[in-house]
Amino acid sequence: MKIIVDAFGGDNAPLEIIKGCAEAVAEFDDLSIILTGDEGKILKVANDNNISLDRIEIHHCTEVITMDDHADAVLKSKKDSSMAVGFNLLKNGEGDAFVSAGNSGALCMGATLAVKRIKGIKRPAFSPVMPSANGFFMLVDGGANVDCRPEMLVQFAVMGSIYMNRVMKIDNPRVGLANVGTEDHKGTELYQTTYQLLKESNLNFVGNVEGRDIPQGICDVVVCDGFTGNLILKTYEGVAMVVMNEIKNLFTGSLKGKLSASLVLGDIKKLKKKLDHNTYGGAPVLGASKPVFKAHGSAKAVTVKNAIRLSRDYVLADAIGEISKVINSED
Amino acid sequence: MKIIVDAFGGDNAPLEIIKGCAEAVAEFDDLSIILTGDEGKILKVANDNNISLDRIEIHHCTEVITMDDHADAVLKSKKDSSMAVGFNLLKNGEGDAFVSAGNSGALCMGATLAVKRIKGIKRPAFSPVMPSANGFFMLVDGGANVDCRPEMLVQFAVMGSIYMNRVMKIDNPRVGLANVGTEDHKGTELYQTTYQLLKESNLNFVGNVEGRDIPQGICDVVVCDGFTGNLILKTYEGVAMVVMNEIKNLFTGSLKGKLSASLVLGDIKKLKKKLDHNTYGGAPVLGASKPVFKAHGSAKAVTVKNAIRLSRDYVLADAIGEISKVINSED
Repeated sequence: MKIIVDAFGGDNAPLEIIKGCAEAVAEFDDLSIILTGDEGKILKVANDNNISLDRIEIHHCTEVITMDDHADAVLKSKKDSSMAVGFNLLKNGEGDAFVSAGNSGALCMGATLAVKRIKGIKRPAFSPVMPSANGFFMLVDGGANVDCRPEMLVQFAVMGSIYMNRVMKIDNPRVGLANVGTEDHKGTELYQTTYQLLKESNLNFVGNVEGRDIPQGICDVVVCDGFTGNLILKTYEGVAMVVMNEIKNLFTGSLKGKLSASLVLGDIKKLKKKLDHNTYGGAPVLGASKPVFKAHGSAKAVTVKNAIRLSRDYVLADAIGEISKVINSED
Repeated sequence: MKIIVDAFGGDNAPLEIIKGCAEAVAEFDDLSIILTGDEGKILKVANDNNISLDRIEIHHCTEVITMDDHADAVLKSKKDSSMAVGFNLLKNGEGDAFVSAGNSGALCMGATLAVKRIKGIKRPAFSPVMPSANGFFMLVDGGANVDCRPEMLVQFAVMGSIYMNRVMKIDNPRVGLANVGTEDHKGTELYQTTYQLLKESNLNFVGNVEGRDIPQGICDVVVCDGFTGNLILKTYEGVAMVVMNEIKNLFTGSLKGKLSASLVLGDIKKLKKKLDHNTYGGAPVLGASKPVFKAHGSAKAVTVKNAIRLSRDYVLADAIGEISKVINSED
């Protein structure tokens, strides 16, 4: 198994990315990695931090796609970027999967246009796995497609369901449609039509799910268009961040607070981990014909390692083969 | 000033509603209240709990609209409900504003069709005021209109801006458009067109705002369609609830936790209050030709009192007159 990793994606690149790669190869004997990016810089960071590059090769390139670049930089203006080169290696079969913590828009565009879609899939979807009160769930589409048709939402449901089953080991994943009420007539025409199509499908469709129930873990796959999904995803992260910051201020703002915190430090760390997207490691771009995986932009080494592990599972589980089979049997 | 209050709306009716009314008249000398609902029950609850009904009159009616009723029950099947009767009293000028903690859908429908819209307003909007890291903001539309046109979103922005200025005393309120990125080309056609219209308006438009920045308090009025807004609103409440529950479990799950909590109890209460929708008390239905105010479904007495206070401010500030003036000067 060989996984291609963008050494220059995300806020903590390249140090945390290289560290995460080293941790991943240490954990999995069958794994080797191709790092894309400036060879001199990678070698220097590895050397300065005593990181072993055993089973990690470097594919040199000079450019970096930033968070401010337009998504199409990956196809046009920055063809020698660590992300664009990663996509090329994946397309040419030089690795089994591609992981990046870089610009999500560029990653979705590259997955769709450089790697291409699975035959029969109308649009790939950005599909983050997120924490809930009792575990985790997948949000699909988390932002790749602002305009959707009902057939696209049904494909998102099929892909999310297969991923959660095969890669995240959830039996018979419960699929919910994000909506403003539970009754079947709720929402816009897009959502009303999708509701009927999901009801008639073979999926384990549990009906419409409201925003208040999503963080409770009411289902395993939450389906919506990418405009709504992106706002749910980011509001979710934003509110969790604000509340955790307030808790932090409460514990650090006074002597009593510090004393109080010292008593429950272990539990606070557990809670932070539970609520942390880094625990789950990221989001596959479902619908691409080869595994493309987004690690969170603020990923540290452990998250990068998790993303590599999940990409490996994604390959081993042949989730893409299964998606292709199900989508094309329905035609 | 006379405010009509639905005695049978919300999870804690009628006790907490009656209590809240008594607290409101005790606070404001100029205030009297008409409670709508079953007179026998109201009198019994007031008597059993030693609540004074000074300056509170009762308008007897027999039915109650539940959370499970369709919105149109307020116009059709339950014309003798505490909510429908409240709307009738408001329409007939027997009170200056109407407050209910009941079914939001029914309240929006009654505000639109029983009370009627402000002339020139295309659609009233459900407009909750929500807590942020540094204060509060208004989300408009929080769920009344799932299908919107750009002109409607611009009217939401105008109404929200006037309300936040006149009632919530915010100077030159910052208006943001909920979106999936900050650049002007982001989002669906609805959002792209609205962006341009807001940019050309006289409002203090600060551009697109992303989900992650909304809880930080990046602006005072967040504008979006009601489908998106309802999902933002409820995800917001759901995530805050999940995190606060986890904190509660952390503090109550062990002896150390309880000891820890005892040290910071005052601060935790302050934080809970800060994050609690009950502090702000609710949501006006902006665009109705008379003040209609939704208190949160789980409202306790203090929230009901706050909702009555805000409705009183809403009347005193003549926000409706100002909205009418601005909307009709633009035609």
